[in-house]
Amino acid sequence: MDIATTLGIIFGFVVITGTILYEGNLGLFFNIPAIAIVGGGMTCATLIHFSLAQFLGIFSVIKKTFITKIPSPSELIQKMVNYAAINRRDGVLALEQEIGKVNNPFLVKSLQMLVDGQDAEAMRELLSLEVQYLQERHGVGKKILEFMGASCPSFAMVGTLIGLVSMLAKMENPEQIGRGMAVALVCTFYGALFAILLFLPLAGILGQYSKAEALSMEMIVEGICAVAKGENPTVVREKMQVFISTSRREEVKAKV
Amino acid sequence: MDIATTLGIIFGFVVITGTILYEGNLGLFFNIPAIAIVGGGMTCATLIHFSLAQFLGIFSVIKKTFITKIPSPSELIQKMVNYAAINRRDGVLALEQEIGKVNNPFLVKSLQMLVDGQDAEAMRELLSLEVQYLQERHGVGKKILEFMGASCPSFAMVGTLIGLVSMLAKMENPEQIGRGMAVALVCTFYGALFAILLFLPLAGILGQYSKAEALSMEMIVEGICAVAKGENPTVVREKMQVFISTSRREEVKAKV
Amino acid sequence: MDIATTLGIIFGFVVITGTILYEGNLGLFFNIPAIAIVGGGMTCATLIHFSLAQFLGIFSVIKKTFITKIPSPSELIQKMVNYAAINRRDGVLALEQEIGKVNNPFLVKSLQMLVDGQDAEAMRELLSLEVQYLQERHGVGKKILEFMGASCPSFAMVGTLIGLVSMLAKMENPEQIGRGMAVALVCTFYGALFAILLFLPLAGILGQYSKAEALSMEMIVEGICAVAKGENPTVVREKMQVFISTSRREEVKAKV
Amino acid sequence: MDIATTLGIIFGFVVITGTILYEGNLGLFFNIPAIAIVGGGMTCATLIHFSLAQFLGIFSVIKKTFITKIPSPSELIQKMVNYAAINRRDGVLALEQEIGKVNNPFLVKSLQMLVDGQDAEAMRELLSLEVQYLQERHGVGKKILEFMGASCPSFAMVGTLIGLVSMLAKMENPEQIGRGMAVALVCTFYGALFAILLFLPLAGILGQYSKAEALSMEMIVEGICAVAKGENPTVVREKMQVFISTSRREEVKAKV
Amino acid sequence: MDIATTLGIIFGFVVITGTILYEGNLGLFFNIPAIAIVGGGMTCATLIHFSLAQFLGIFSVIKKTFITKIPSPSELIQKMVNYAAINRRDGVLALEQEIGKVNNPFLVKSLQMLVDGQDAEAMRELLSLEVQYLQERHGVGKKILEFMGASCPSFAMVGTLIGLVSMLAKMENPEQIGRGMAVALVCTFYGALFAILLFLPLAGILGQYSKAEALSMEMIVEGICAVAKGENPTVVREKMQVFISTSRREEVKAKV
Repeated sequence: MDIATTLGIIFGFVVITGTILYEGNLGLFFNIPAIAIVGGGMTCATLIHFSLAQFLGIFSVIKKTFITKIPSPSELIQKMVNYAAINRRDGVLALEQEIGKVNNPFLVKSLQMLVDGQDAEAMRELLSLEVQYLQERHGVGKKILEFMGASCPSFAMVGTLIGLVSMLAKMENPEQIGRGMAVALVCTFYGALFAILLFLPLAGILGQYSKAEALSMEMIVEGICAVAKGENPTVVREKMQVFISTSRREEVKAKV
Repeated sequence: MDIATTLGIIFGFVVITGTILYEGNLGLFFNIPAIAIVGGGMTCATLIHFSLAQFLGIFSVIKKTFITKIPSPSELIQKMVNYAAINRRDGVLALEQEIGKVNNPFLVKSLQMLVDGQDAEAMRELLSLEVQYLQERHGVGKKILEFMGASCPSFAMVGTLIGLVSMLAKMENPEQIGRGMAVALVCTFYGALFAILLFLPLAGILGQYSKAEALSMEMIVEGICAVAKGENPTVVREKMQVFISTSRREEVKAKV
Repeated sequence: MDIATTLGIIFGFVVITGTILYEGNLGLFFNIPAIAIVGGGMTCATLIHFSLAQFLGIFSVIKKTFITKIPSPSELIQKMVNYAAINRRDGVLALEQEIGKVNNPFLVKSLQMLVDGQDAEAMRELLSLEVQYLQERHGVGKKILEFMGASCPSFAMVGTLIGLVSMLAKMENPEQIGRGMAVALVCTFYGALFAILLFLPLAGILGQYSKAEALSMEMIVEGICAVAKGENPTVVREKMQVFISTSRREEVKAKV
Repeated sequence: MDIATTLGIIFGFVVITGTILYEGNLGLFFNIPAIAIVGGGMTCATLIHFSLAQFLGIFSVIKKTFITKIPSPSELIQKMVNYAAINRRDGVLALEQEIGKVNNPFLVKSLQMLVDGQDAEAMRELLSLEVQYLQERHGVGKKILEFMGASCPSFAMVGTLIGLVSMLAKMENPEQIGRGMAVALVCTFYGALFAILLFLPLAGILGQYSKAEALSMEMIVEGICAVAKGENPTVVREKMQVFISTSRREEVKAKV
Repeated sequence: MDIATTLGIIFGFVVITGTILYEGNLGLFFNIPAIAIVGGGMTCATLIHFSLAQFLGIFSVIKKTFITKIPSPSELIQKMVNYAAINRRDGVLALEQEIGKVNNPFLVKSLQMLVDGQDAEAMRELLSLEVQYLQERHGVGKKILEFMGASCPSFAMVGTLIGLVSMLAKMENPEQIGRGMAVALVCTFYGALFAILLFLPLAGILGQYSKAEALSMEMIVEGICAVAKGENPTVVREKMQVFISTSRREEVKAKV
C-alpha cells in the first residue's frame, strides 16, 4: 500500500474535524440516524446492484490492494535481461531453477510455459487473455466503490428530504427552521464527505493499482516472448525500456 | 436470483421507513398524487421512448433474471474437459448422448453443431454472432430500467414545481409555507427514492447478469472450438482456466 | 408508429393536467411569456446549431418514423429463405420477378444487384457502406431532438431568472414574493416538462427506430450475400436466426 | 454560412429582450460588472487552457465557417462522374485542364495526384491521412467554443457568489435582500444566456460544418480513387450515391 | 510555456479581485478556514487517489510543461527533408554527425536507430510503442489536475455545509442569517474559483501540450521511416505536409 493513501485518509479527517471544531461543536455533526440512512441506504443499493459474492469480495480486494507488492518496472526489466542471458548461455532449461526464486504467480506461470518449450506466439495469446480476464475481475472492486461513492450523496438527499419534510410539516414558528434545517443538512454533509473523501478516492487508487498490475503483466508477456524467441539481453532491454521513462533507463545491465 | 438483491430491497425499505418513523410520521410520506405524478409520468415517458413490445418485455426480462441459473465457470470448465476426454476416447459422435444431459440451450446448440461435424472456425463465427445479438437483445431491459431511473427524479421535479407554484400563488401568510413545501417536497423524495433504491440498482444487477451470461457463452464457444479441434483434456483445461481466478483453478480434472 | 408512443404522450399530459387540477388551478400554469421564452429560445438555439435544411427536415424525419413500417425480422428471414430456395431451383434470374413484390427500397436495390450477378463480397461492401451512411443521415433527427431536450431546461432557467430578478428588484413587501416566484417557476416547469415528456423520449424512440431499421438492413445484407453464394435454404435460415431470439426461431420454413 | 445561424442569433436576442421588457425594465439586466466577470473570467480560463495561437485562431475559424462554401454532395458526384468519363474517353492527362476549373484546394490536390499518375491505393492512404489531420486541426475551434460555453455558467456562479456574500455581509434589514439578490442573479443570467444562446450552438454548427467538410473530402477520396482505377462513369456514380439519400439519387448523369 | 497561460492566470485574478473590490471588501473573501478545508480536503483526496510518487511528480510535470520547447511542425519537416537529402547523397552513415546537433531525446534515439541501419518497419513498431507509453505516463499529470478540479467544489460544499449547520444550530434571530451565510458561502466561492480558474484550465493546457508532443513524435516516426526507406526529399516533404495546414505548406525546401 502506498503511504499516501493512509496519510490522505488520516489528514482528511483531521482537516474536517478541525474545521468543525473551529466553526461549532462536534456533537452537532455526530448524528446516528443520518449515518444510518446514508450508510444503510448505500449498502442496500449496493447489495441490489451486485451479487453477494461480489459485495463480500470487495473487502478482500481492498485488503489485497493495500498489501500485495507489484514488482517495479525496473526490477522486471532486470529479471528479463537476466533470463535472456541465462537462456542464451545455458539454454531454456536452465531457467527452471529461476522459477523457485520468484513469488509473482503470473511470472511463475510464464516462466513455466517458457521452460516447457511453448511457442512464443501461443504464449503471448494465452497470457494476454489471462491479463484481460484478470483485469476484468479486478475491475469489479473499482466499480463497487464507484457505485458506493455515487449512492452516498443520493441517500444523503433522501435523508435530508425526510428531515426537511418532517420539520416543515410540524413547524409552528420560523425560529424552529434553523435547528431543523441544521439537522436535515447533516445528512447531506455525510453523503458528500463519504463520497469524496472515502469511496471515490479509494476507487481511484484501486484503478491505479489495477493499471500498474496490468503494466507489469504486459511487461512480463513482452519480456518472456522476447526470451522465448532467443533474443540477446541487449535487445530484450531495448524492447522493455519503452515501458519506463527515459530518466530511469540507464540503470539496467545483465547480472547473471 | 442472488439473495443479495432481495435483502437489499427489503432492508432498504426498512431503513427508509425507520428513519421516517424516527423523524416524524409515516402518513406525511404517503401521498397518492405524488406517487401518481412520479410513477405515471415515468411510465408515460418510458412508453414514448420504447415500443410497447419492449416495454411489456421488461417484466419477463426481470423475471428471467431472477429465476434463470447461469452455469458456474468451474462447472463449464469441468464439462468441456469431459467432452474433450470423450471426444478423444470415443470420437465426436459419442458426445451426442451428452446433449440430453444438458439444459442450457446455447450449450445444446453448440454441442449439436459439434456432433454434426462442423468446422471449428465456422462454429466460432456463428456462435459469436449469436452471443453478440443475444447481448444486444438482453441489453434493452437494462436500458429501460436506466431510463426509468433517470425519469423518476425529473417527474419528481415537475411534481414539486406544480406543488410549489400552486402553494406560492395562494399563499396568504408565511406560516403556510412550511406545510405547503413539505407536501411539494414529498414528490422529490419519491423521485430520488425510486431511482436510487429500485430502478438504478435493478438496471445494475441486470447488467451484471448479462455480463455473467456473456462470459459463460464465451467460455462455451472457446471450449467447444477447442474440443472440435481435437485438443486433449489438459490443453482444454489450460485454455479455459484463464476465465477464472487463480485461487479456484486447481479443482478441475477430467471425470468421464 | 408504435401505439405506445401515442398512448405515452396522451396519458402523460392527462397525468400532468390531473395533478395541476388537484393542486390548484390550470390558469396558473398557462403562461404565454413562459411558453414564448422556453419554446422560442429553444428554437433559436436549434437554428444556430443546425442548418436550416436539417432543422426543417426534423418534421419529415418524425413523420417518417411514425409512418414507415420496418419489416419484422421473422418476415425477412422467411423472404431470404424463399429467395435461397428459388435461386437453388430456378437460378438467380428467377428472382427478378420477386423484386416487383417488394416495396422496401433497400431490399429492392439488394435484389437488383443479386439479379445483376454481382459478387457477394462486392455487394456486402457496397451495401454496408449504404447502411452506414443512411444511419448517419437518420442520426441527425435524434441529435436535433436531444439538443432540443437539453435546451429546454436551460432556457427555462433563463426565463425563471428574468422573472426572479424583475420580481426581486421591485419587491416592496415580502408578501409579494409568493406570487412572483410562482410565476417565475412556471418557466422551470415548462422546461422540465417539454424535455422529459416530449423531446427526450421522442429522441429515444427515433433512436429505437433507427436501430431496428439498421438491424433489418444488416439482415438483408447477410441474407442476400448468403443467397449470392448459393447457400441452401436451411443454411440461410441458420445464419439469419442469430438475429432473433430463440423463442421465435422455430416458425420459419421455405415456402416457395 | 447557413442563414439559420444568423436568424437564430437575432431572434434569440429578440425573444430574450422581449421577455425582459414584458417582465420589468431592460436597465436592470444591463450590468457592466456582471458582464466583466462572466466575459473576463471566461476569456482568462480559455487563455490558460489553450495556446495564444489557438485562441486567436478561433476568430478566423469562425469567419471561415461562415464564409467558405462546402461543395454539395450531388455536385461532387456530378464532377466525379464527369472525370470518369473524361478519363475513359481521353485518358488521365486530359483531366489536367479540369484542375483549373476547380477552386476547392483538396480537390485540386487530388486531381493533381491523379494526373501525376499516382497509384490508387497510395493516393487513398495519403489523402485519408490529410482528411484526418485536417479534421483534428478544425476540431480545435469546436473545443474552444465548448470550453467557453462550459466556463460561462461557472464564472457566472463565481460572480453571483461574490454578489451574494457582499450583500449578505452588509445586510441590515431583510428588505434589502430583494434588490441585492436581483443584482447577484444577473450574473447567473448572463452565464446561462451566453452559454446556451451563443457558445454551445456555435460549437454545434462548427461541428456540423466540420462533418460536412469531412464527408465532402471522403467523397473526393472515394471518387478520385475510383477514377484512378479506370472505373466507368456508371460504376463511379453507383459507388458515390451511397453518400446521399435515396430521394436525391436520380439526378446524376455524365455531362462531358 | 505559452504566454497565454501566464496572462490568463494573472488577468483572471485581476478580474476576480476587481469585482470583489467593486462589490464589497476584500477581507470578507480572505478566509483561512475556508482555504484550509478546500485546499486541505482536495490535497488529501488526491493523496488517497494517487500514489505519493505520482502526486509529487505533478510539480515536475507542470514545470516541464512550462519550460520544454516542442519542436514546431515546420521545423521538423525541414529537418526530415534535410535528412532525406543527406541520406540520398552521402548515405545513412553521414547522418551520424546530425545526431549531435539535435537535443530532442526522441529524435536522437530515432536518428541513432536509423544510423544503426535498423529496418523501417521494426523502427516504426518500437518507436510507436515508445510514443504510446510516454503519452500514458504524461497523461497522469492531466488526470491529477482534473481530479483536483473536480474535488475542489465538493470540498467547498462540505465546508459550506459545516458553516451552514453550525450557523443554523446556534441562530437565535433571523438577522444573524446574513452574516453566517456570507461566511459559509465563501467556501463555495473558493471551490468554484480554484476549479475553473486554476485546475481545469491547467489540466487543459497539459493535455494540449501532450497532444502537441505526440504529434511531433508521430511526425518524427513518419519522417525517419520515410528516410529509412530511402525516399527522396520531395516525397518525404509531401508525406509530412499532411501534418500541417495548407497555408503553412509552401515554405519547406531541402537546405543541406
